[in-house]
Amino acid sequence: MAEVTRVCVAGAGVIGSLFAAHLSRVAEVSALVRRDEHARALADSGLRVSGRAEFTGRLTAATSPGELPEPELVIVACKSLDLEGVAERLAGHWPDAIVMTVQNGIGADEVVGRYGDWRQLASVTFMSGTRHEDTHVEYVLDTATWIGPARGTTPADAHTVAELIVASGLKAEAFDDLRPAQWSKLIFNATVNTVAALTGLRHDPHFAALDRPSDLGHLVRALMDEGKAVAAAAGVTLGEDPWEMNVLATHRGSAHYPSMLEDVDAHRRTEIDMITGSLVREAHRVGVPVPLHETMERLIKAKEDSWG
Amino acid sequence: MAEVTRVCVAGAGVIGSLFAAHLSRVAEVSALVRRDEHARALADSGLRVSGRAEFTGRLTAATSPGELPEPELVIVACKSLDLEGVAERLAGHWPDAIVMTVQNGIGADEVVGRYGDWRQLASVTFMSGTRHEDTHVEYVLDTATWIGPARGTTPADAHTVAELIVASGLKAEAFDDLRPAQWSKLIFNATVNTVAALTGLRHDPHFAALDRPSDLGHLVRALMDEGKAVAAAAGVTLGEDPWEMNVLATHRGSAHYPSMLEDVDAHRRTEIDMITGSLVREAHRVGVPVPLHETMERLIKAKEDSWG
Repeated sequence: MAEVTRVCVAGAGVIGSLFAAHLSRVAEVSALVRRDEHARALADSGLRVSGRAEFTGRLTAATSPGELPEPELVIVACKSLDLEGVAERLAGHWPDAIVMTVQNGIGADEVVGRYGDWRQLASVTFMSGTRHEDTHVEYVLDTATWIGPARGTTPADAHTVAELIVASGLKAEAFDDLRPAQWSKLIFNATVNTVAALTGLRHDPHFAALDRPSDLGHLVRALMDEGKAVAAAAGVTLGEDPWEMNVLATHRGSAHYPSMLEDVDAHRRTEIDMITGSLVREAHRVGVPVPLHETMERLIKAKEDSWG
Repeated sequence: MAEVTRVCVAGAGVIGSLFAAHLSRVAEVSALVRRDEHARALADSGLRVSGRAEFTGRLTAATSPGELPEPELVIVACKSLDLEGVAERLAGHWPDAIVMTVQNGIGADEVVGRYGDWRQLASVTFMSGTRHEDTHVEYVLDTATWIGPARGTTPADAHTVAELIVASGLKAEAFDDLRPAQWSKLIFNATVNTVAALTGLRHDPHFAALDRPSDLGHLVRALMDEGKAVAAAAGVTLGEDPWEMNVLATHRGSAHYPSMLEDVDAHRRTEIDMITGSLVREAHRVGVPVPLHETMERLIKAKEDSWG
């Protein structure tokens, strides 16, 4: 992959908006969105970033790839629930582009890969923010996006994209093999998101409490232990230890509002299939029992059903 | 125990109100309540029953046992969270009375027994209703109360009380040994209440669904299997099979609103310590692992904490 001069960000939620606005400072950026008024608002007003950075990015935007300039890099930043829909709309376009997925869980690149022969990168992101309106996103947690090669790409391609993202003002790091990071985040997410969504607690010190037998930390640790057993059986050496990530994060002061709790509070369908679901599927594949993750999956799905 | 002519009902929530009003038709009934205005309202207006029966019971009421006539039978019908407080107020009164507990879980008679040397009966009730105001309770589910001997009583005492309750218009049955029934209900309650409270679902057909691996019935059955293993290790032969109770109840048409879900919806402390807590304590005593019930206990306690 040579220099990247044009990037398309597909999906402009929190993560997509953060990418699109920042990258517009170092590349020509377009946004592929679902709603016409969203596209018009972005094209007319640009995309404002507040919080850790303060600027307004300028970009083009449309609801169909045919209306956008051909990019060298596509960042698919939609929620995993919209992944099939976005991949379907990209099908047949931009065969020379590299398509990078950023969804939670594992397997997003495989889903997208079924819709075209693009070369691909995989990534996980730890940054977060709050979307205040179509044209305004607040940059809250300035943690990194980790990028690794997938179908048809090399570690050098991952480096090129990571450098572009760093130049834009966000944090990014390239890995020769993304799986250790991806699995650490999967185990962390499958635990913290479901526990938060069922208890109504933000990611606060309860998640690391181990004093009494009924304290929540025991459940968090047991869920993470199940996840680690699956990773080990799948031949993956974890990057960071999910329990240490948990202890660290809960002592950082302000408690993060996990996206699955946000979904539950808004009575929206959650990403349970992509997060816990992908861990449970992998556990069945390698023959490791995960009764606690199955419990969380069943409870969350039943909770979704309770909204009728 | 000879004939019962005076009954005191301690605690006039749904269950206490249903007992007090019905029994007032066959005995002299007093109610021991916490609030002065509750006592005054009951004494002034009586206690109206609607639903499966329509009448107004007449009774005396007070906030202290010293103001009430001495009864032969005390029915402690408060919630388990109030049990210690009610038992404390009864301490030193009415040494010749038989005291019958009706709380969920196991061990309520032992808690009360620490506050006095009364003879005791144990019971579990399956009836339910809705409390519309201090002086009006709706009788909804006309299922039975099961009564068995406890400290210092015989099966004959249980029969005497069951007959009195039946004469009053409610359903009751006496057992020589209550434990099989008590344990069936404990396992049923520890499962259905926590699952409902975490998912927001009433006790509906989701609880018996087994079609897909992620269906809720698998969790319900696994929780009940853990409970059955504890009962077996504790030397208790179950009365009814909790899973069959579950399947039957979820096919009855209108879905029951479990009290723990009601508590969670109102952001009130739940009976988790008395229900799941007593099962988990018993499991530890007999050395049977109950990771799923521990999970439910931790999630419910964390949910209570989320209300700050």
